[in-house]
Amino acid sequence: MFVDMPLDRLRQYRPERREPDGFDAFWAATLAETREHDLNAVFTEIETDLSLVRCFDVRYAGFGGHEIRGWLLVPATATGPLPCVVQYIGYNGGRGLPHDWLTWPVAGWAILVMDSRGQGGGWRTGDTPDPVGGTGPQVSGKLTQGVLSPGDYYYRRLYTDGVRAVEAARAHPLVDASRVVVSGGSQGGALAMAVSALVDDLMFAFIDVPFMSHIRHAAEITDEDPYGELGRFLKSHRHRVEEVFATLDHFDGVNFAARNTTPALFSVGLRDGVTPASTVFAAYNHYAGPKDIRVWAFNGHEGGESEQVAEHLRTARKLLEG
Amino acid sequence: MFVDMPLDRLRQYRPERREPDGFDAFWAATLAETREHDLNAVFTEIETDLSLVRCFDVRYAGFGGHEIRGWLLVPATATGPLPCVVQYIGYNGGRGLPHDWLTWPVAGWAILVMDSRGQGGGWRTGDTPDPVGGTGPQVSGKLTQGVLSPGDYYYRRLYTDGVRAVEAARAHPLVDASRVVVSGGSQGGALAMAVSALVDDLMFAFIDVPFMSHIRHAAEITDEDPYGELGRFLKSHRHRVEEVFATLDHFDGVNFAARNTTPALFSVGLRDGVTPASTVFAAYNHYAGPKDIRVWAFNGHEGGESEQVAEHLRTARKLLEG
Amino acid sequence: MFVDMPLDRLRQYRPERREPDGFDAFWAATLAETREHDLNAVFTEIETDLSLVRCFDVRYAGFGGHEIRGWLLVPATATGPLPCVVQYIGYNGGRGLPHDWLTWPVAGWAILVMDSRGQGGGWRTGDTPDPVGGTGPQVSGKLTQGVLSPGDYYYRRLYTDGVRAVEAARAHPLVDASRVVVSGGSQGGALAMAVSALVDDLMFAFIDVPFMSHIRHAAEITDEDPYGELGRFLKSHRHRVEEVFATLDHFDGVNFAARNTTPALFSVGLRDGVTPASTVFAAYNHYAGPKDIRVWAFNGHEGGESEQVAEHLRTARKLLEG
Amino acid sequence: MFVDMPLDRLRQYRPERREPDGFDAFWAATLAETREHDLNAVFTEIETDLSLVRCFDVRYAGFGGHEIRGWLLVPATATGPLPCVVQYIGYNGGRGLPHDWLTWPVAGWAILVMDSRGQGGGWRTGDTPDPVGGTGPQVSGKLTQGVLSPGDYYYRRLYTDGVRAVEAARAHPLVDASRVVVSGGSQGGALAMAVSALVDDLMFAFIDVPFMSHIRHAAEITDEDPYGELGRFLKSHRHRVEEVFATLDHFDGVNFAARNTTPALFSVGLRDGVTPASTVFAAYNHYAGPKDIRVWAFNGHEGGESEQVAEHLRTARKLLEG
Amino acid sequence: MFVDMPLDRLRQYRPERREPDGFDAFWAATLAETREHDLNAVFTEIETDLSLVRCFDVRYAGFGGHEIRGWLLVPATATGPLPCVVQYIGYNGGRGLPHDWLTWPVAGWAILVMDSRGQGGGWRTGDTPDPVGGTGPQVSGKLTQGVLSPGDYYYRRLYTDGVRAVEAARAHPLVDASRVVVSGGSQGGALAMAVSALVDDLMFAFIDVPFMSHIRHAAEITDEDPYGELGRFLKSHRHRVEEVFATLDHFDGVNFAARNTTPALFSVGLRDGVTPASTVFAAYNHYAGPKDIRVWAFNGHEGGESEQVAEHLRTARKLLEG
Amino acid sequence: MFVDMPLDRLRQYRPERREPDGFDAFWAATLAETREHDLNAVFTEIETDLSLVRCFDVRYAGFGGHEIRGWLLVPATATGPLPCVVQYIGYNGGRGLPHDWLTWPVAGWAILVMDSRGQGGGWRTGDTPDPVGGTGPQVSGKLTQGVLSPGDYYYRRLYTDGVRAVEAARAHPLVDASRVVVSGGSQGGALAMAVSALVDDLMFAFIDVPFMSHIRHAAEITDEDPYGELGRFLKSHRHRVEEVFATLDHFDGVNFAARNTTPALFSVGLRDGVTPASTVFAAYNHYAGPKDIRVWAFNGHEGGESEQVAEHLRTARKLLEG
Repeated sequence: MFVDMPLDRLRQYRPERREPDGFDAFWAATLAETREHDLNAVFTEIETDLSLVRCFDVRYAGFGGHEIRGWLLVPATATGPLPCVVQYIGYNGGRGLPHDWLTWPVAGWAILVMDSRGQGGGWRTGDTPDPVGGTGPQVSGKLTQGVLSPGDYYYRRLYTDGVRAVEAARAHPLVDASRVVVSGGSQGGALAMAVSALVDDLMFAFIDVPFMSHIRHAAEITDEDPYGELGRFLKSHRHRVEEVFATLDHFDGVNFAARNTTPALFSVGLRDGVTPASTVFAAYNHYAGPKDIRVWAFNGHEGGESEQVAEHLRTARKLLEG
Repeated sequence: MFVDMPLDRLRQYRPERREPDGFDAFWAATLAETREHDLNAVFTEIETDLSLVRCFDVRYAGFGGHEIRGWLLVPATATGPLPCVVQYIGYNGGRGLPHDWLTWPVAGWAILVMDSRGQGGGWRTGDTPDPVGGTGPQVSGKLTQGVLSPGDYYYRRLYTDGVRAVEAARAHPLVDASRVVVSGGSQGGALAMAVSALVDDLMFAFIDVPFMSHIRHAAEITDEDPYGELGRFLKSHRHRVEEVFATLDHFDGVNFAARNTTPALFSVGLRDGVTPASTVFAAYNHYAGPKDIRVWAFNGHEGGESEQVAEHLRTARKLLEG
Repeated sequence: MFVDMPLDRLRQYRPERREPDGFDAFWAATLAETREHDLNAVFTEIETDLSLVRCFDVRYAGFGGHEIRGWLLVPATATGPLPCVVQYIGYNGGRGLPHDWLTWPVAGWAILVMDSRGQGGGWRTGDTPDPVGGTGPQVSGKLTQGVLSPGDYYYRRLYTDGVRAVEAARAHPLVDASRVVVSGGSQGGALAMAVSALVDDLMFAFIDVPFMSHIRHAAEITDEDPYGELGRFLKSHRHRVEEVFATLDHFDGVNFAARNTTPALFSVGLRDGVTPASTVFAAYNHYAGPKDIRVWAFNGHEGGESEQVAEHLRTARKLLEG
Repeated sequence: MFVDMPLDRLRQYRPERREPDGFDAFWAATLAETREHDLNAVFTEIETDLSLVRCFDVRYAGFGGHEIRGWLLVPATATGPLPCVVQYIGYNGGRGLPHDWLTWPVAGWAILVMDSRGQGGGWRTGDTPDPVGGTGPQVSGKLTQGVLSPGDYYYRRLYTDGVRAVEAARAHPLVDASRVVVSGGSQGGALAMAVSALVDDLMFAFIDVPFMSHIRHAAEITDEDPYGELGRFLKSHRHRVEEVFATLDHFDGVNFAARNTTPALFSVGLRDGVTPASTVFAAYNHYAGPKDIRVWAFNGHEGGESEQVAEHLRTARKLLEG
Repeated sequence: MFVDMPLDRLRQYRPERREPDGFDAFWAATLAETREHDLNAVFTEIETDLSLVRCFDVRYAGFGGHEIRGWLLVPATATGPLPCVVQYIGYNGGRGLPHDWLTWPVAGWAILVMDSRGQGGGWRTGDTPDPVGGTGPQVSGKLTQGVLSPGDYYYRRLYTDGVRAVEAARAHPLVDASRVVVSGGSQGGALAMAVSALVDDLMFAFIDVPFMSHIRHAAEITDEDPYGELGRFLKSHRHRVEEVFATLDHFDGVNFAARNTTPALFSVGLRDGVTPASTVFAAYNHYAGPKDIRVWAFNGHEGGESEQVAEHLRTARKLLEG
Repeated sequence: MFVDMPLDRLRQYRPERREPDGFDAFWAATLAETREHDLNAVFTEIETDLSLVRCFDVRYAGFGGHEIRGWLLVPATATGPLPCVVQYIGYNGGRGLPHDWLTWPVAGWAILVMDSRGQGGGWRTGDTPDPVGGTGPQVSGKLTQGVLSPGDYYYRRLYTDGVRAVEAARAHPLVDASRVVVSGGSQGGALAMAVSALVDDLMFAFIDVPFMSHIRHAAEITDEDPYGELGRFLKSHRHRVEEVFATLDHFDGVNFAARNTTPALFSVGLRDGVTPASTVFAAYNHYAGPKDIRVWAFNGHEGGESEQVAEHLRTARKLLEG
C-alpha cells in the first residue's frame, strides 16, 4: 500500500549513481551558451492592495535568451540589501499572484519567484511560454519533451532558467548577492538541487520532496504523475528505454547531489507516492554538502506543509544570526 | 457528471424556505445564555520569525463559557484601531500556525482567526476541544452530533462561538469595533452567514462556497462529505428523517440569509460537488442585504482560490475608501 | 496487492511488544474507579414478534457510571441458568434490533449484546451516547478521541464498558455466571481480547479478525479505516507520533494477549486490508492461553462469516459437553 | 449523482408495458411441461447445533425435472401445520447454511429456502447446478444466458423452480398449504413477483427492491451489475438489441405485476443504483393486487435491511391475526 | 450515469452555432499561406514481411512547410490509379507500424495514414514532431496549446496538415485523385470533418465519434480527456473563458458541418463520455451534405469498432459500384 | 504498486511444479475420447468486401463432438499448400469478423481462428455455445465452471477444441500440414501452450502473456480478472481450496511447459496485473523446448501489441527461410 522501504533502510539507501560521461562539460557548455545572451533583468513595480510589501514584475533572459517572468517582493520599508530567497515552483504550476508569496517578505526577506516556462496551466497560473518546439515524439506533459537527446530536453532549459533566476535576483539593488538562498518543493526541489550544484556561492538550499531524483528507479516503482509520464512514453516507445534514461542521467538529482556543497535542508514524506521516499533519500545520502532532513512519517507528497515553512523560517533566522 | 442546474436557472433558483417556528427566539435565547458567561478575551503576544507582524494567541469564552482559541495578527507598526477580518475555517480544519494568515495583515488589516471546537484534526491542526459529550447516536464527524435536537446540536455551539469571536476581536485595543468584517469559505462561509445575521453592525461579509445552506436539498443531491455524513446517518437511522431536518432548519443558511442585512460578497463554483451551486444560490437569492456573487464556471469547491482573495482585497480597499 | 506476509511467515510472526510501564496498574485503577459506581443492571422485557425467544432491553452503568444499553435474549422456554455469550460489536455499529441476534438463543444459549457508546450511526443503529466531551484535537471517528492521554482515550471507556457487560450478564437470574463466553469481530474482537484479559474466570473467548492489535504496525501498513483515522491524525499532527503511540500501547491487543489465560478461538482473513493478517497473528502468537485459529485464505475482513458462526456453534457445543 | 426521479414523480410513474403476444400461453406451457415431471419432494432431517429448530435438507424436481436443493426449518416444538414463508435468494447467492435462516422459525413460521440453480458461488454458497448448457453467445453471469430466445432463457428455468418451491413447501406435513407466503429481495424479489403471479392462492408476497422489472429502462439507466451484464452483452452484440428485449419482455416484473392479485408489501431505496427506484415503482404502480410499499429515502439496494425484516414480522403477525 | 439526452431528443438536437466573423477568411488565409510552401511529397518504398501489399514511408510539407510523416499502403499487384482513403488518427496516437493499416489495401484501396504532429506518444507511436513552440500558458496536452489566439492554436496546424495529406495522396501515381475519401474517429473524425469542408472535391467522408464538435457544450458536460484539458485550463485561468471559446469557434466541427457538402457517414455511441452523443448530433444535424449516421445504443467512445469497419467497407463498395 | 519481482529474479524463477498423478493419462484419455467423434471439418466460403483474401466459415467437431466455429483466411491468389497459423483468443472474446484477421494472410500465410465455446460475449463477438451444463457451484465466468473435477472442468473442453482446431486446419487442402504454428495471447497463450504440448509435430508456438500458468500463485498475488474469479469462488467456498487447485493442476501451463518440445517465442509485460510476470516466467523457465522471450519492461497485459506482431512476422519469415 505504501511504496518503498522502512525508515531505517532508507537512511542507508545509497544506490550506485549512473553518471554520464561529460556531465560537467554538458552543464558548463549549457551555461556558457546561455550567458552569451545578456541577462537583461527588468523589474517593474506594480500596484497591489498589499501595503506592507513592494512588488515587482520581473523579466529576464533565461536559456536561449528567452524571456522568463517572475515576481520580486520585498518589505515596503526595505532600504538596504536584503537576504533573498529564490523560489522555484512545482510541476504544472506558475508564479500565480503576488499575494501567494507573502511569507518571506513578512519575515524580512526578499523573495524572487521564478515562473516555469511552458507550465502554469495547472493548479496556479503562469505567464511564461516555452518558445522551443518539439523535436521528437512525447506524451502530454513536460517530462518527455525532447527526452531523446540531452540537448533538446525541456529540463535543460528549465534548470538553466533557474540558474539565471539567481543572477536576476542578484541584479536587484535591494538584494544582497552574498545572501541568496534557493528553495522549492517537488519540481521546485529539483531546481533547487540543480541550481545549488551549478552556482557556487549560494548561502543555503531548501530542497523539499525533490522530483527528478533517482529517476529510473522512480519510473520503475511509481506510476503517479509526473513520473507516470515516463512510464506512459516507454509503454508505447518500447525500444527507447536506454536512450531515454541516457538523457535523464544528465538531469538526475543524485548526480547534482554528489557535487553539491551548498548547505541544505531536505524534507521527505514516507508515504509519498509521487516522489517516493527512496528517491529522496538516494539524493540525500549522496549529497556532498552540509545537510539535514526532516522526515514526515505519515505524510505523502504534501510533506511538512506549514510545519516545513516553520522549519524554513527557523533555519533562515539562524542563518542570519550566523 | 456535473451536479445541478445551468447558470441561468441558478440565478432564478429561490426555493421555498422551511423556517421553524421560534427560529429567532431560539437564537436570541442561545446568545443570551452564552452572554451570561464573561467573554474573558485574553490576548498573549507570542514570538515568531515574522518581523512585519505581531501575533497574539487568543482565548475567549464561547458557547457555554468554553474556552475557544484563535490567533490575532496585526501589522507590526500598527498603533491605532485597525479594520479587522474575523476569519472562520472550513470543515475539519483548525487555526494552524500564524504564518498561515498573513494576507490581511500585509494589506494593513487585523485578522482574528477562530479555531473550530472539536475540529482541527484534518487538513490543518487545531487546539480547541469541544468539551460537550454526545447525547444520541451519530456518525463520525460533526454534522450529526446532537442532530436530534436543536439545543444539543454541534452547530449551535459553533455558530455561537463565531458570534463571540466578533466580540473578542472588538475587545482588542488595536481593533476598530466599527469596522469588523466576517469571512470564510465552506463551513467558514456558513459561519460568516450565520454570524452576519446574528450580529447587527458588521461592516461586510465574505461568504465563499457556503456549507449548511439549503441543507435538505444538499443531502438529497450529493453524497460527498460533509453532507454525506447526513446521508450515512439517515441510511441507518431510517425513521428519523423528519426529526433530523427539523433540527437542521434552525441552522440553515437560507434562513439566516432571509434576515441578513450585512453587505456581502458571495462566491460559487458551478462544478462544486461538496456545496452544490444550487445550495449556494438558494442562500444568495434569499439574501436580504446588499450583495454580489462571483461565479467560477469551471471550478469545484475550491472556488476562486487566489483570484477570490484578490476580490476580497479589492473589495476591502473600496470599503475603507468608503 | 494483498498486504502482508505469506502464511508460513505469519505463523512465526511474534514481534516485540511495546508495553508501557504501569499497564496493569492503569487497568486496575480504571476498573476500581468504575466499580465505585453501582452496576445497576436493569432488564426490561419487551414485546417482539419472535415467539421462540424472550427479549430484554438492558441498561447498566459502564465507565464513569454512564448508562450503557444492550439486549438480552434467551430461549422462551428457559427456566434455569443458561450459558451466555456476551457479544461485542464492530466499529460504527450499534446493538440494532433484537431479531439481529437469534443464533445463540436458537442454539440454547443466552446472549447479551453490548451497545458501543457513541457509535451506532453507521451500519447498524445504536442507542448509547458517550457523554464524555473532547479533550484535545481529533479527526472524525473514535480512534483519535482523547488519544493524547491514556486517561482520556475513548477505548478506556469502551473496554471498561465491556468488562461491565460481563458483570451485567452475570447479574441476570437466567444466566449461569460460571459459563460466560465473550465474542466479537473486528472492534468486537478487540473488546473480547481486552475483556478476557481483564476478567479472570471467563469460560471462553471468540476473537475474530481483531482490531486494535499491533497498532503501530497496522497504522504503518494500512490506510483503510478505522486504522486510517490514525494516519490522518498524524498526517496533520506531525509532531505527536510518539505521544499517540504511547497512549495506544495501553490499549494494544498484543499486550492483553500476553497476559490472557482464557481459552480462545481466533480467526483471520489472509487478504484482510482492515485488520491485516500480521496484526492478528501478532496477537495470536503472543496469546498466553489455550488457543486455536481459523485461517481463511481467500477472505478479507469479512473472515469466515457464516462458516465462522458454524465454528462457534461447534466449539460451544463441545464446551458444554465439557 | 443519484439516479432517477424525485419521490413524487416516482409515485406517479406508470410507464407503458411491453407485453409480448402469448405471454400467458408461454408460462402456462412452461408450467404444464414442468408438471409432467413428478415433484418428488424429499425432506431429510439433518443434525445441527440449533436446538430450538428442526432443519431438513430439501430436494425436489424443478424445471426440466432437474433436482433443486433447499432448506426447510421449523420450530423444534411444531406439531401441527404451520404458516410457511418460501424464500428466494438474491443474485449470485445460494442457500448457505441453516443458521442463516432463523428469523421466521423464531417467529413461529416454517421457512423453505430455495437454492438458485447455477448460482451460489458469490456471496453465499449454493449446492444446485444448472445442468442446461449454453445455446448462444453470452457474457459472464446468468442474465444473458439463453437470452436470444424465451424458451432457452435462464430465468424461464429459475422462475419455474420458484413455482415448484411453493409446491414442495405444500408437500410437507408441517406446512399449512393455505398459508404460504413468498418473499425475496432483488432477484429474490423478481422470483416472489413472478411466482405470486403464476400461483393463484398464495397468502401474501414480500417483494423487496425487485430485480427484473422494467428491464429495458433499467439497462438504459444503470450499468451496475447485474443489469450491467445486459449492457456489456449489447455493447458487443450490437445488432441484437431488439431480439434481446423481446425475450426479456417474457420475464419482466411489470408484466407479472399487471396480472398479480396476491396481496403484497414492496420496498424500495431511493438511492438504489442496482435496481433503480423507477424500475421498482414501474412494477408497483402496475401491480393489480392489494399493495403497500416502504420507501427508504436515503438507502441504496440494501433497502430497509433489519427494519424491513421488522416490517415483515409485523405484517406476518397481522396476517395470522386475520 | 450516462451523460446526455435520449435518442429521440438527440435526433432533433440542432443547437445554435457560434460562428466567428471571418471564419472562411481565416481558413482561406491559412491554406493560402501553407500553399506558399512546396508540398514536396516524397514516397520511399520500404521492405516489410507483408507480401500482399507495398508500403511507402511518406513525407510532405504541412502547415508552415513543416515535414509531416505518414504511410501509404497499396495492394502489391496494383498498377493503375486506385481509390484512396486518407486516414486521420485519434488523440495521442501516431501512425504506428505498417501492419496496423491492412484493411483498406486488402479491400483493394490505397490508404494514406497521416501522422499527427507532436502526438504519437500515447497508445500508438508517431514520428512527427511539432516544431512550433509555446506562445502562452497551457495545460499538458494539445487542446490548450496556443488556445488564446486562433493563429497560434495547435489545431490550425493539424487541420492544415490534414488538407495537405489529401494533396500528398493525390500526388502519388497509384492514387486516383478523383476518388479520395477521408476517414477518422475521434480526433480523426474532427480532421475528416474539417478537411472535407476545406477540400471541395472529395468523394466521401467517414466521420466516427468526432471530437472538436460543439466544443463549449462538451467542456460543460464532460470532464473526460481530452475535453477535460479545457476544463482544467479554465479551472486555473478563470478569467479567460470567453477568450478561449472565441478561439475554439474557429475550429468547431459544427461550423465546418454547416458548410460541408461531401457525402458522409457518421457514427455515434449513446454512452460516449469522451465525445458525448449530443456533441456528435449537433454536428450531424447541422451537416449540409448528404449524410447518414450509425447509432450504437450501448456503446461508449469505442463506437461500432469492427462493425463500423464493416459499414465502411460496405459503403466503399457501393461508392465504387456507384 | 507493480506486482511481482525485478527482472533478474524473474529470469531465475523456476518454482516447483505441482503435477498431479496421471496428468498424461488424463489428457491421452481426453483426446482419445474426443477422436471417437468424426472431425467433420466443413469450410464454407463466404463473400466479403476483402478482395485480396478468401474467407471460409469453419465448423468442426470439438470436445464431445460439439460443433466449434471459426474462420479460415488465405491470400486470394493462393493455389498450393500454405503455412498456417492456428489462432486462439483471449478470455471473453470470440472470432469476431473476418477483417479482424488480416495480418497473416497479407504476410502470405493461412490463418484459422478458433472461436472459444461459450465465450464471445465480451469484447469481440463469438458464435459457439458450450452445450455442456453446470455440474456444481461456480461464480460468473468460465474459470470456475466444473472446477471441482478435472473431468467436468471447462478448460478440458476448450483445450481439446484447440487440439482439434489444428486437425481442422490440416484438413484443408490449401494448408500445409507440416507447417502449422499455434498462436495466442492471454487465454489464447494458454491454449497455444497446451496444444503445442499435446500435438507433437507443430512447427512453432507464439505464446504471449499466457494465462493459466502457475495458477495457484497467480490466485494468491492478483485479484484482477480472470484469476480474480478463482479468488471470489474460494472466498465463499472456503473449504474447497485444495479440491479446486487439484483440478487446476491438470490445466496448468507449467505442467504443459515441462513436456513441451515445440520451438516457441514467449512475451511478457513486467507490469502485467492480469497474468503477472512471475507466472509467465514460471512457465518459460520450465519450458523444455527451444525458446526465447520478449520482455516489455513498461507494459502491462497488453504486452508488445503491434511490436509483438512485428516479432511474429519476423520469426515467421525466418521459419520459412528455414
